[in-house]
Amino acid sequence: MSSAAIKPIEQEDHYVTRLTDGESWVERKDPVVWSEWRPGAPLATDQVEKFQRDGFLILEKIFLPGEIDALVEESARLRSDSTKLSQESLVTEPDTNDVRTIFDLDLQSEVFSRLAEDVRIAEPVRFLLDDEIYVHQSRLNYKPGLTGKEFYWHSDFETWHAEDGMPRMRAISASVLLTDNDALNGPLMLMPGSQNTFVSCAGKTPEDNHKSSLKKQEVGVPSAETLSKMAQKHGIEYAAGKKGTVILFDCNTMHGSNGNITPFPRSNAFFVYNAWSNQLEAPFGAEKPRPNFLARRQPKQPLTLREGHIE
Amino acid sequence: MSSAAIKPIEQEDHYVTRLTDGESWVERKDPVVWSEWRPGAPLATDQVEKFQRDGFLILEKIFLPGEIDALVEESARLRSDSTKLSQESLVTEPDTNDVRTIFDLDLQSEVFSRLAEDVRIAEPVRFLLDDEIYVHQSRLNYKPGLTGKEFYWHSDFETWHAEDGMPRMRAISASVLLTDNDALNGPLMLMPGSQNTFVSCAGKTPEDNHKSSLKKQEVGVPSAETLSKMAQKHGIEYAAGKKGTVILFDCNTMHGSNGNITPFPRSNAFFVYNAWSNQLEAPFGAEKPRPNFLARRQPKQPLTLREGHIE
Repeated sequence: MSSAAIKPIEQEDHYVTRLTDGESWVERKDPVVWSEWRPGAPLATDQVEKFQRDGFLILEKIFLPGEIDALVEESARLRSDSTKLSQESLVTEPDTNDVRTIFDLDLQSEVFSRLAEDVRIAEPVRFLLDDEIYVHQSRLNYKPGLTGKEFYWHSDFETWHAEDGMPRMRAISASVLLTDNDALNGPLMLMPGSQNTFVSCAGKTPEDNHKSSLKKQEVGVPSAETLSKMAQKHGIEYAAGKKGTVILFDCNTMHGSNGNITPFPRSNAFFVYNAWSNQLEAPFGAEKPRPNFLARRQPKQPLTLREGHIE
Repeated sequence: MSSAAIKPIEQEDHYVTRLTDGESWVERKDPVVWSEWRPGAPLATDQVEKFQRDGFLILEKIFLPGEIDALVEESARLRSDSTKLSQESLVTEPDTNDVRTIFDLDLQSEVFSRLAEDVRIAEPVRFLLDDEIYVHQSRLNYKPGLTGKEFYWHSDFETWHAEDGMPRMRAISASVLLTDNDALNGPLMLMPGSQNTFVSCAGKTPEDNHKSSLKKQEVGVPSAETLSKMAQKHGIEYAAGKKGTVILFDCNTMHGSNGNITPFPRSNAFFVYNAWSNQLEAPFGAEKPRPNFLARRQPKQPLTLREGHIE
């Protein structure tokens, strides 16, 4: 067991989960938006209000066409020559060895490192979290057409808290679409307002849970009854858009995606930004922490934001 | 082998399929709309043009709320007490015995028999086919939320021709929505215009293919390359609507549906109307015909259409 996993006796747990005695709903104990709006803020007031209310926000047309082309090209390059990448960071198809996911994306690609630091994404996130930020997890996702599988409903924070030791709800994900995404090719679906309820999930975390949970999550999944109630209460929206669209969503927003039998693939670059003050502790609901490519520990310094064109 | 399966030597096959030497595209040899429009026709000219062009047509608000309630209630009644139904006609969940599909719907329910004969559905179909009609197949479908599986792309006619011996493209399906259906809970997706191309599929039909193909079709499925090309050419549309909406689609329109992780179930009543002159012969691509609950043989008389309220 690594030193990061030694849980201090006094470690306070605001979001207890993975208990064996059943599921419960807990009210969120942290703000969704941590800053007060001010003139010159990187988001308009209605954008901040939308994020506060719904737990997600879509940013459209923030990149130039040439920048989007550069990102798409870099993603094709990485997927076509994965031998130079850390093998631990890859998820491949068992049959064909086709690359489906590349973790540690910003650590393995100059272009995507540049994207992670881009003011057009990272500045709004830093504002919403009212803190310096660092990359907690990053990945490139590629789902083929015709056979794309569904991703079931979950709150990311539940896993990050239980298995990674993220103490508070003070992290935001940014999904940068690298293909056009509409209602039919399995877009990200979210329950607006669900970020305000923490679903404490039933069931003890199995050892090395991440080895199977990256394919199909079994623990940390809300019950059918809870999902039906939440969907009745909040409704379901989907985040679609042209390639280059960016979706920001809170770490506790309930989300998932349907499978995709259309021939149109889906790809995105995904960055999780965590507040500097919210660095990982020992896991709150697992014996040992997940590996670094899934949950970065002891970041050296906060992200330095960069302006200008991505090339 | 039943007498229906003895294939006369002179039997002409306009849509050869299930060959072992690969897939091919064949131009449709039959009209999509068989009638000339005339004043007093049961569809407007733009509706007829839409069906001719796209191979499907959506009819909204043709039933009164009370009629829709009656259909929904009858469907719940059938599913909750399936012991009185023909056991052959049922598809149930292996784990729970929950009823997912009831075939021969119009033969086992007065209310749905009445629906099949309703002028608001059957009259437009009879007009488009320019012939008397009978029910080739009928069923009630129920897909639960959260776990609804996808239904892969296919042309119904390919199977009905190969496995049932339907000679020509002169049949229309009517799907009557019994739940609200939107883009996210796995609606029917169709490729508009695809009805004009017959995809002759590769592979010999296995014996008793329908026993597995009702769950997952393996033979009679177009290749990934063909589906990608057709989707590029035709695009993909989806047929959504409030409960009570009716979707008419041609027997050769390429269609499918995504899985459904939303908690909202999908249910519909489904009637396939075949032209009286297009009755089944020996199968064109299988050793013996499928059972009667999947493909009715020797209908006694054409459908008698009925007016008035459904109760």
